[in-house]
Amino acid sequence: MTIRLQAIASYIPRGGIDNLLQAAAFGETEDSVLHKIGARWLPRKAEDEETSDLATKAVAILLEKTQLSPGNVGALVVVTQNGDGYHLPHTSAFVHAKLGLPTSVPVFDISLGCSGYVYGLHILRSLMQASNLDNGILVTADPYSKIINPQDKATTLLFGDAATATLLSNQGHWSLSNPRMGSDGKNAEQIMVKDGQFFMNGRQVFNFAALLIPKEIQALLQENGLNETDIDSYCLHQGSAGILDAIARRFPAVKDRFINKLYSTGNTVSSSIPLLLEEQISRAETKRVLISGFGVGLSWASMILNRKEI
Amino acid sequence: MTIRLQAIASYIPRGGIDNLLQAAAFGETEDSVLHKIGARWLPRKAEDEETSDLATKAVAILLEKTQLSPGNVGALVVVTQNGDGYHLPHTSAFVHAKLGLPTSVPVFDISLGCSGYVYGLHILRSLMQASNLDNGILVTADPYSKIINPQDKATTLLFGDAATATLLSNQGHWSLSNPRMGSDGKNAEQIMVKDGQFFMNGRQVFNFAALLIPKEIQALLQENGLNETDIDSYCLHQGSAGILDAIARRFPAVKDRFINKLYSTGNTVSSSIPLLLEEQISRAETKRVLISGFGVGLSWASMILNRKEI
Repeated sequence: MTIRLQAIASYIPRGGIDNLLQAAAFGETEDSVLHKIGARWLPRKAEDEETSDLATKAVAILLEKTQLSPGNVGALVVVTQNGDGYHLPHTSAFVHAKLGLPTSVPVFDISLGCSGYVYGLHILRSLMQASNLDNGILVTADPYSKIINPQDKATTLLFGDAATATLLSNQGHWSLSNPRMGSDGKNAEQIMVKDGQFFMNGRQVFNFAALLIPKEIQALLQENGLNETDIDSYCLHQGSAGILDAIARRFPAVKDRFINKLYSTGNTVSSSIPLLLEEQISRAETKRVLISGFGVGLSWASMILNRKEI
Repeated sequence: MTIRLQAIASYIPRGGIDNLLQAAAFGETEDSVLHKIGARWLPRKAEDEETSDLATKAVAILLEKTQLSPGNVGALVVVTQNGDGYHLPHTSAFVHAKLGLPTSVPVFDISLGCSGYVYGLHILRSLMQASNLDNGILVTADPYSKIINPQDKATTLLFGDAATATLLSNQGHWSLSNPRMGSDGKNAEQIMVKDGQFFMNGRQVFNFAALLIPKEIQALLQENGLNETDIDSYCLHQGSAGILDAIARRFPAVKDRFINKLYSTGNTVSSSIPLLLEEQISRAETKRVLISGFGVGLSWASMILNRKEI
């Protein structure tokens, strides 16, 4: 059985922050907000909205869109590092309850950040193939507003809240290549929460991604016997406008195929890639997409998606 | 490529609690400690020992035992809900760093509790098969001493700290069946940390396991065309002596094959099954083992392991 990506849905909270106003308070220019950070607006969940609420809303939209009944969900996986505020249980248990899924549905959380969507696709696809499951849902929901200090310019101007839900199935039209994956735990402290404070060394993370990700993309293309022009759309983790530009500049012939959609969401962690993909897979002219996630861990993963003709 | 279980190692902290002394302070009898709870001694990690330290020690013993070099580890997965005390990064990132694993090794955490080992075996095995990896390590490390209130009789008399590491490989001798897995998020609140307080409704959890797990075991045997006497050893999650007895009583013909090894460790969450298995796979007369984990989520999973003749 071949498992493919069938559909994606997303939930973006209505509330949020005008990033130009927020940036002005830090003395940041409009140019810096729009071109270095890239985000004009940062969605923020409501105070009483839990991670599992964001996740459940995204899945509900997906079920509606695909007309899949909860009874036909074979497995559900939530990628998050900011779950419902408990050590335990896992956030997917609450999503299971809120959606009223049958007790036959296995659920668990994967703890990963900005690389988590690509890992999650591969983990869930592998599990479904081994277990012979027809349908499985991958959820991303990692609201950084829970950990951001509004006085920390390096992070409060960057991150937005969102959740997505992706249906993998034996009916999908987007095949998933083998991923390239990796980790660098020695640099884990570049993005971490310590003593309740979220800290990111923006410069170091920028350098890591700008150096490594172009090489990973090249290696993935080569592994798949493709040239950079064979890819219609490069959907990279939306770390910041600056990092996207730095990576895209390494591919001058296809620079314009690197999607930048930070403007109205900011960096939504593991939700950033599926937010781009949701749009790309609805465009008939897009046949082949390369996705690449990188960040906390440090951790990275890249994969190619191909549209199968019906 | 078929991935099998090759070897298991464990790390149990030297320090701990004399459970008879602890129980006496609550007015509990020796009989209750030894026969209802089952644990005479509860290992406790040192104050400054982190979850990733426990995990790293277990993996180091595994690498030593199997003579596997860190450079040949294909993937590493940590099952925990009490990681290194950060929202992020994942605990496996610290394990990656402490072991000095190459950057080519993908690592991530799975958030599950007492069912986590069985889920983890299936998830890692599926991933390795899909990615064509020769070796992968599954770690369990979930020190409940981090969240237990020493005044809460229902939990402080029950849980012990431990970590295990399991090598899955294309060289292993123990094949893994398809698992039976399930979830009941509607009862998630029976085992949870809320407002920093760990709470377990022991009676409800007992009833859930005593009712469900015998049925799951029967169904798994049937799916595999086996009778209960075909299993040499039943390695169930060591919830408590009482719950083990209640389940074993449902299988009178093989009651003595249900292993109870709570005495010197207590309930070590996701480490309880691999602690039993570590001993079972070293016994030449053990050819077929049934494992079953159940608890937080609520979540459960069961699987059969078969020794392949060399």
